[in-house]
Amino acid sequence: MITMQRGPQPADFADVRATNLAVVLRYVRGHAPCSRAEIAATTGLNKATVSSLVADLIERRLLRETGLTEHRIGRPATMLVLDGSPYAAIGIEVNADYLTAVAIDLAGQQVLSWRRSFAGLTSSPAQAATAIAALGRRAVNRVLKEDRRVLGLTVGVPGLVSPDGVVIMAPNLGWRDVNLRDIVNRALGEPGFPVAVDNDANLAVLAESRYGAFAGSQNLIYLTGEVGIGAGIISDGQPLRGHRGFPGEIGHITIDPQGPPCACGRRGCLEAIAGITAIIARVLPEVAGDGDITDLQPEVDEVVRRARAGDPAALHALDDVGRALGQGVSILANLLDPEVIVLGGYFVPLAPWLLPPVEAELRARRIGPDTGSPQVVASILDHGAAATGGAATILDHIDAGRLPRP
Amino acid sequence: MITMQRGPQPADFADVRATNLAVVLRYVRGHAPCSRAEIAATTGLNKATVSSLVADLIERRLLRETGLTEHRIGRPATMLVLDGSPYAAIGIEVNADYLTAVAIDLAGQQVLSWRRSFAGLTSSPAQAATAIAALGRRAVNRVLKEDRRVLGLTVGVPGLVSPDGVVIMAPNLGWRDVNLRDIVNRALGEPGFPVAVDNDANLAVLAESRYGAFAGSQNLIYLTGEVGIGAGIISDGQPLRGHRGFPGEIGHITIDPQGPPCACGRRGCLEAIAGITAIIARVLPEVAGDGDITDLQPEVDEVVRRARAGDPAALHALDDVGRALGQGVSILANLLDPEVIVLGGYFVPLAPWLLPPVEAELRARRIGPDTGSPQVVASILDHGAAATGGAATILDHIDAGRLPRP
Repeated sequence: MITMQRGPQPADFADVRATNLAVVLRYVRGHAPCSRAEIAATTGLNKATVSSLVADLIERRLLRETGLTEHRIGRPATMLVLDGSPYAAIGIEVNADYLTAVAIDLAGQQVLSWRRSFAGLTSSPAQAATAIAALGRRAVNRVLKEDRRVLGLTVGVPGLVSPDGVVIMAPNLGWRDVNLRDIVNRALGEPGFPVAVDNDANLAVLAESRYGAFAGSQNLIYLTGEVGIGAGIISDGQPLRGHRGFPGEIGHITIDPQGPPCACGRRGCLEAIAGITAIIARVLPEVAGDGDITDLQPEVDEVVRRARAGDPAALHALDDVGRALGQGVSILANLLDPEVIVLGGYFVPLAPWLLPPVEAELRARRIGPDTGSPQVVASILDHGAAATGGAATILDHIDAGRLPRP
Repeated sequence: MITMQRGPQPADFADVRATNLAVVLRYVRGHAPCSRAEIAATTGLNKATVSSLVADLIERRLLRETGLTEHRIGRPATMLVLDGSPYAAIGIEVNADYLTAVAIDLAGQQVLSWRRSFAGLTSSPAQAATAIAALGRRAVNRVLKEDRRVLGLTVGVPGLVSPDGVVIMAPNLGWRDVNLRDIVNRALGEPGFPVAVDNDANLAVLAESRYGAFAGSQNLIYLTGEVGIGAGIISDGQPLRGHRGFPGEIGHITIDPQGPPCACGRRGCLEAIAGITAIIARVLPEVAGDGDITDLQPEVDEVVRRARAGDPAALHALDDVGRALGQGVSILANLLDPEVIVLGGYFVPLAPWLLPPVEAELRARRIGPDTGSPQVVASILDHGAAATGGAATILDHIDAGRLPRP
């Protein structure tokens, strides 16, 4: 089939050591407990090299010996497992109505997971950044108190983020050109570890690809079920970045030209019909406009309660919303041909009532033979997929060979 | 920012020779005429290795010496250029109303470019395959008559194609599960060179990325402006393949829920409003239903004539069509964030009247700061972009190291 040229390059020997450290670490990550001999046999590296690399990684406290030995002919071999507990990465997720902080250690264990109500839309950018930085500081302090080193902190926001961490625009927070990375970095006292900012959907799909029910899928899309709806896309095994770095903007695609007005000024946008604010306004019209948006969880709980109780108005509204969401899902399915589309955030508790109409729309609109793809599923990650992804992206850099120094 | 693991692999030395042959070939392709010393200096390969590789490539008639010499200190150096003229690749494009055949030699020169009227929709699959194979045979014979060797033949079709060359469905040809690769291979007498089949939009975007105005763009989309509308997508430098290999299906996205009925059974699809059949039916209602679709070029010429003459009905219709096309373009822009979207096929002669409303819709619907992307342009490739891409994909395999044996 079609292939494109990456321009074959002669081997760059300066990176070989770093690459081989990562090869060993990655092998142990997938096959622990394992012996040095097994690493050598499987990776093709010679045994002396493997011993040297393992010694390096043990000194950096990224691997440790377990004291177990394989049963085999000859000298018993000490087994190796990941260490990594001395290191943790922190992710923070910013939504219009709540913040989440997650910390994960290098062995993949979750160290903390917090949620805080947050008046995203009514705070000024400065107030919001202060709240974000305060949560970050608390997370950093917890990690340090547990005698671990912070490898980095990444903040996920519902907006367009430049490569250097400036939030170009985040309409559901009311932000424009906010240099969030600098603000958070300063508020943390310029701690020396990397502070980054990225789009929440991009981070969440990374978390799904590592920890979700379809971890490892090469063609995976995550839809943020928050006040805004955005798509994080993994295509052919890689995060889709696009020309400017702003892909996946599905929230303001016109689903119904005669539909309700959207905050963006257009009408009938996906977000205006199927975003959580719109869902709450339809099912609980009595609470809409009750005041500032802050933590919609109680309202969502009430929607779930009414749907479970069989309330006809609630069920009808969720079916309509599901059909609109299904139109959006069908566009993604036909353009990107993913294996699975994951509904996250507040879509998760509403999934029992959203998935059937979504799937019906998909069946009606899908181009091509019915091979069962894409599957549409609710995320198994709690709220905090973007925070988890923020931490995971820091851990990925470690695996890519940028190992912490001893 | 986010990176994902490709799983670093230790170097596989068995492929080194093939890779280095490709490195040298690719360097000469980009920098001819050049000397062996220049190749060594730039690629980092040592001079003895380069001499050996160049000798190999000269023996395979992929490079040749020109007899020119550089002006430099020391012994004059013989310059090298691509040969490749002894080899040609053939691409055939199947549309509902015409066929195109293109042959390109390994140095990138076009050897032939033919167009034939074709009654795609009214022919049975067997009749259509016969016509395709007949055109293929003529192209093969021309290449052989010029004392060249055929490296391969790839057929582009407006439909979903499996990896082994079966056309799963091509609605605008009325095909379902047609094993076109086998049929063409047999009709050519099982010639021994590779015969492949792929989706036309996928092949056309490859041609654009090699020969178009935005050659080399890492984020490029091509829209086929034929009876059907499909999108070929290059994202982050690679052709987007998706889970099943069927991405870019934009033709039946609902642009207007109240719109005209589509041949697919839905209504208001992009194709039903902006496909060339729909355009002709709107501007030249008197010819619609005039008989079998075969070569719409005369009708398109008449549409152009009327638009140039300022005919108000024609201009109004083209503006409406452009707005619908602009909605489709905006969806692609917001989801995939390309650098440029290229309108091909029959959109090219209609571009002067389509581009302004397309750009107006894009400006109105584009999410994010106005950075001027994506640009929307008409293809500079003649009809035959998919055929050109078919030939190019065979040449890419050569560059990737699968060099023809002497």
